Amino acid sequence: MAQQKQLQVAIGGASGETGMSIVNALLDSPDRFDVIALVRPESASKPVYQDIASRGVSIKIVDFKDIEALTGILEGVDIVISCLTVEQMAEEHALIDASHAAGVGRFVPSFFAVVCPPRGVLDLRSIKEDFLDRCKRLYLPYTAIDIGWWFQSSLPLVPSKRLDTQISLPDTILGLDGNVPTAVTDVSDIGKYVARIIADPRTLNKLVFAYGEVTTQNKVWASVEEATGETIPRSYLSKEEAEATMVELKEVVSNNHADLPSLYKLTMTAYKYTTVIRGDNTPERAAYLGYLNAKLLYPDVQCKSIKAFVSEIVEGSRSAVVYQDRPEHPITKMRGKGTKR
Amino acid sequence: MAQQKQLQVAIGGASGETGMSIVNALLDSPDRFDVIALVRPESASKPVYQDIASRGVSIKIVDFKDIEALTGILEGVDIVISCLTVEQMAEEHALIDASHAAGVGRFVPSFFAVVCPPRGVLDLRSIKEDFLDRCKRLYLPYTAIDIGWWFQSSLPLVPSKRLDTQISLPDTILGLDGNVPTAVTDVSDIGKYVARIIADPRTLNKLVFAYGEVTTQNKVWASVEEATGETIPRSYLSKEEAEATMVELKEVVSNNHADLPSLYKLTMTAYKYTTVIRGDNTPERAAYLGYLNAKLLYPDVQCKSIKAFVSEIVEGSRSAVVYQDRPEHPITKMRGKGTKR
Repeated sequence: MAQQKQLQVAIGGASGETGMSIVNALLDSPDRFDVIALVRPESASKPVYQDIASRGVSIKIVDFKDIEALTGILEGVDIVISCLTVEQMAEEHALIDASHAAGVGRFVPSFFAVVCPPRGVLDLRSIKEDFLDRCKRLYLPYTAIDIGWWFQSSLPLVPSKRLDTQISLPDTILGLDGNVPTAVTDVSDIGKYVARIIADPRTLNKLVFAYGEVTTQNKVWASVEEATGETIPRSYLSKEEAEATMVELKEVVSNNHADLPSLYKLTMTAYKYTTVIRGDNTPERAAYLGYLNAKLLYPDVQCKSIKAFVSEIVEGSRSAVVYQDRPEHPITKMRGKGTKR
Repeated sequence: MAQQKQLQVAIGGASGETGMSIVNALLDSPDRFDVIALVRPESASKPVYQDIASRGVSIKIVDFKDIEALTGILEGVDIVISCLTVEQMAEEHALIDASHAAGVGRFVPSFFAVVCPPRGVLDLRSIKEDFLDRCKRLYLPYTAIDIGWWFQSSLPLVPSKRLDTQISLPDTILGLDGNVPTAVTDVSDIGKYVARIIADPRTLNKLVFAYGEVTTQNKVWASVEEATGETIPRSYLSKEEAEATMVELKEVVSNNHADLPSLYKLTMTAYKYTTVIRGDNTPERAAYLGYLNAKLLYPDVQCKSIKAFVSEIVEGSRSAVVYQDRPEHPITKMRGKGTKR
């Protein structure tokens, strides 16, 4: 046995892109982590859970709304990581309450996205701040981790359509002139960082920014053009256009909550606004906003470069297909069956 | 001239208890600070402004709602400190925008109260968090300073009524059993800390907790009993009573916004709830919430002890009369003319 204490880590939403990245990284250190997946009864039959169970993850069927039962399951757990979706707000609040009641040593709320000021820029961010505020009211030890924008949703398509089947969430529009710096990360690298962060006393009750590299949309476009030999037509979005679109779509969505395509477009425009128009998603902004920088904490962690990722996609040795096998995921639902943008 | 750069400091709300503590401290270091008081036209005739003008403060008449004019006034200013009241929310937001537009090096929002989780405990705190969120959206360099609960509003009255004229905001009810630790500060000591904090690069973009000492209501009551020889009858407030009172008063106030005495009682109950029932107002809680501790940053700063303060009040060499000469102050308005509690 390892000399360091074996840490009990429970994960909600383990089957998602972020959850699987984390589970894979924790399973790579079996002497450090015991991994528990908290699974809703309706998800228990997913093949992914059979797969991770066979690799050593304990599967616990839970009702995220039954705080008492959830508390019982979390007793003795050192770290709880939420990778629940934004649709599962009530479940995340219950998980916070149960983690507090069980005396969990560290709660990692479902952040795992871009750096952004707490309120008034991105509605999804405000929801996450509510999670954090709930932790703070309870003095529940926490670490909130943001990871920037995924490589997987940073690549443009090319005119020949040869990348269409490999990229399910392409980036088709450049913010401003395409030169706004923004931090990007391979989803597969998230887990490596998380495995370090959750075992590190320096990150307790902190925000941490763990990203692969800082790039610009123009650099990414150029990488794809270089790797494919194709010229990608450019489409630009100004600050004023983005703001007008958001005002318009907020109106549409507030009049019809069931209009998921409009909600999707609103969400994606707001993300574009904060990242590649306002320029919030950088290490410098993160430092101002109080984040620790994982690059400084863990200089030995090696991350994939987006240039290497582009090569893999173009060679076909890897795909950037996300969400598509999961009809229950809010992104899939919002985008509608078979739609792409 | 001093070798260190002379800092231009502009203060809004300079004539209040906190503002005057800060002005006095800054005037004590005339080689470090140039002090500007931002004064509304309707306040310009107050004797206090004539007094501080005679002591070296530049008085600038401003319309806090005219952002363009305010920006012009703030150009070249290094530090802006807001001691505006909670009624002046629109003015504070304008001051933030103007400070940003003018390129001010550090903005100190109107916190200067108890340590408390950001949202869901104390409504006044949420309003202050909105100030901070506005700063963060603009990446305006900031320092938010909390100072605990004032000595001036921590003392009980005694049965002989001999302290009644000296204490305008007595503390008459003990939270729980009276033993909950809480940080208290002599209003006169706030400025000493602020003068250090605003010139310190370590405190940029941070929360700072600057307090006199940690005590309990029982210790304060005992000090007053010892100094007066009188026995003070005890009245206790439980968590459940405080919560029920707040629910009831929120209902009353939401039905009648003009019911200022109820709003006052709600505010005071909420303050009592966070400080001496929940126990939020301590250095340990502050550390969890991300505050730097001014005791560790400035171990040489000497603060008055509450025991010494009690002696001065009982001897009559000092008074704890606050707000009473200011009919326009929200506390005075809420409490109503001549009422005391």
